[in-house]
Amino acid sequence: MALIVQKYGGTSVGTIERIERVARKVIAARARGDQVVVVVSAMSGETDRLLGLARQIASRPEPREVDVLISTGEQVTIALLAMTLQKLGCPARSYTGAQVPIITDSAHGKARIARIDPHQVRAALDAGQVVVVAGFQGVDALGNITTLGRGGSDTTGVALAAALKADECQIFTDVDGVYTADPRIVPTARRLDHITFEEMLELASLGAKVLQIRSVEFAGKYNVPLRVLSTFQEGPGTLITYEEQQVEEVVISGIAQNRDEAQITVSGIPDHPGVAYRVLGPVADANIEVDMIVQNVARDGTTDLTFTVHRNDHERAMEILRGRQKDLGAREIAGDSAIAKISLVGVGMRSHAGVAARMFSVLASEGINIRMISTSEIKISVVVSEKYVELAVRALHEAFALDRAPHR
Amino acid sequence: MALIVQKYGGTSVGTIERIERVARKVIAARARGDQVVVVVSAMSGETDRLLGLARQIASRPEPREVDVLISTGEQVTIALLAMTLQKLGCPARSYTGAQVPIITDSAHGKARIARIDPHQVRAALDAGQVVVVAGFQGVDALGNITTLGRGGSDTTGVALAAALKADECQIFTDVDGVYTADPRIVPTARRLDHITFEEMLELASLGAKVLQIRSVEFAGKYNVPLRVLSTFQEGPGTLITYEEQQVEEVVISGIAQNRDEAQITVSGIPDHPGVAYRVLGPVADANIEVDMIVQNVARDGTTDLTFTVHRNDHERAMEILRGRQKDLGAREIAGDSAIAKISLVGVGMRSHAGVAARMFSVLASEGINIRMISTSEIKISVVVSEKYVELAVRALHEAFALDRAPHR
Repeated sequence: MALIVQKYGGTSVGTIERIERVARKVIAARARGDQVVVVVSAMSGETDRLLGLARQIASRPEPREVDVLISTGEQVTIALLAMTLQKLGCPARSYTGAQVPIITDSAHGKARIARIDPHQVRAALDAGQVVVVAGFQGVDALGNITTLGRGGSDTTGVALAAALKADECQIFTDVDGVYTADPRIVPTARRLDHITFEEMLELASLGAKVLQIRSVEFAGKYNVPLRVLSTFQEGPGTLITYEEQQVEEVVISGIAQNRDEAQITVSGIPDHPGVAYRVLGPVADANIEVDMIVQNVARDGTTDLTFTVHRNDHERAMEILRGRQKDLGAREIAGDSAIAKISLVGVGMRSHAGVAARMFSVLASEGINIRMISTSEIKISVVVSEKYVELAVRALHEAFALDRAPHR
Repeated sequence: MALIVQKYGGTSVGTIERIERVARKVIAARARGDQVVVVVSAMSGETDRLLGLARQIASRPEPREVDVLISTGEQVTIALLAMTLQKLGCPARSYTGAQVPIITDSAHGKARIARIDPHQVRAALDAGQVVVVAGFQGVDALGNITTLGRGGSDTTGVALAAALKADECQIFTDVDGVYTADPRIVPTARRLDHITFEEMLELASLGAKVLQIRSVEFAGKYNVPLRVLSTFQEGPGTLITYEEQQVEEVVISGIAQNRDEAQITVSGIPDHPGVAYRVLGPVADANIEVDMIVQNVARDGTTDLTFTVHRNDHERAMEILRGRQKDLGAREIAGDSAIAKISLVGVGMRSHAGVAARMFSVLASEGINIRMISTSEIKISVVVSEKYVELAVRALHEAFALDRAPHR
């Protein structure tokens, strides 16, 4: 008998019919002899409806009261799912975050889980109940209701799985697993049976919006096997574990693209020590996150600095730098938001040289100009013109033979 | 500095605009130097919306989960009201029933309050906060969310006022107080400044649907001065206290009418001991509540028994009795749902003889036939044909000079 934590997002519980579909999946898992804890989000649209009410009152309502308000969304879902399970003859019991309890810090709207007391949940499981827990929410040490921030239901699922020492945490979404590339771009993209936490972290942060980054970090930290699978299709999904459990000989696991960034180049700055700090300091002070940074070798006593920020912050970052152009002594400040970042990810890179060279050669043979490069132990990212995204991803997918299942 | 508990119902908090109106009333009370605890219901329509979701799942969803579901209604309102108060510059803090905590028994859907720990609320008040509490809900000793049943927010207000030893519990409704008669029937009906708990109980149970009966009982039991007043109009409302605080010399406080009942007459039953039990036993067994009962003096060895039930139960009660007509040896079973009960209520009756005689004479002079009579220490009720309701109420209102303020 295994203990499984299943997490269903807002789309999966968006209607009474869909809640019944979820209930039947839970019952099927139970019929296989497993104990099941189900974590659910608010019905899709509900959190926005509640936030809409709050915004009619104030543009910045107090975070404590926002949490009291929006935590009702998941509370509604747990009650409806428990009722549905009961109607279908399956003993079930709902728990709010406060009832579990899931103890968090007091950072309303972005609380972090401090600890979970698994005592009550375990007792209910041992009594034959399916336990239905409200995702995304907790309670601080003083009894105030908190929320973990958007998408936090994944984190609830993983944290509960860790606290209960569950055999697996299954994240049900609207895709049936993690793919070697975006199937909308690469029709031959292949669902991965298995991927490591590290790879998933790189893929998640690079735009494959399957899982919340924090929940993957959490799962990795507590070594909770994580499985991504579809609410709407049958299938094994993709299992995410540590490398040592992986038996496949894969160099590249997947390709991710990200169109959310914009590029800024500050050129012709006198090349004194501290140039990067003088350019990026004011940007950081405005709470704008910088992703890739490239500084060219100085030429004629001046240097160029290029970096990327989120597209939403592009205008603001440009304004800040224009306001300091004189101070910096920069010749020009140029921006471009029509860019994309393309990344190859794979733990196999560690032991396989030449991946970067191969990537650059593939892109060159397609006539795609690389503007920036950034590498880590298990990924290589390049920035290219946005118009090349599809071409680049398809060419790389084919060159690295990602459409073929790896040898075992 | 007084401590006031204010309770606002679903209509009073039905929209964001109305919530702001409530907030301004709370702030006005605070500006008078009072500490304020506000108890609110779910926004009008919200509880029904949630119950509608539950009914799509099952006709009889488990009561524990129904409570988890519908308690979110008040939770939304407390957050919105607290945000509104904060926006208007008034420190405020919301509390669910579980957070206060309001401890109840475990009778989901109709829980009774066992005790309230006023510690947290008092600390927040002393810190200068307005405390906003979710009505209608509590938590049992095991941490399960419970609800007090429909209209239970009044009870929450009174119970909190009792636990906090508040100076007054103000129930805000859509009427501006308790009237000597229904103003839609008697245009000269007068708002009472003051009424006793006993009178209010009689009036409440007789159809003046201003207050929940249970909350009046509760207020009487714990001697919490209760004030009924309007959310939408300024005015002192009606204060409800114990008799000793009343200085007015009033015989009759008000007239109530009730059209919710139907009459059943079982006639020609052989007059043996236990007739009433044999007729009413089966009705009670079917969980049908019987209000007035009159048994006529036996004639020719047979007797007649007449009683009233709620109109919704009339058909069912008739069927039960028809099924037992042979056993009872009754000659006839007749029903009439076109009846009304009219009641005079007033603690002054205790010391004033002749009220009943005067009432009967007034009705007789209008040609109104009395079908049943029932009296208690502070009320006289008569059943008449429904068509006479307005005539009877107006005639009595005038005869007892209820339109004139009493001498002091």
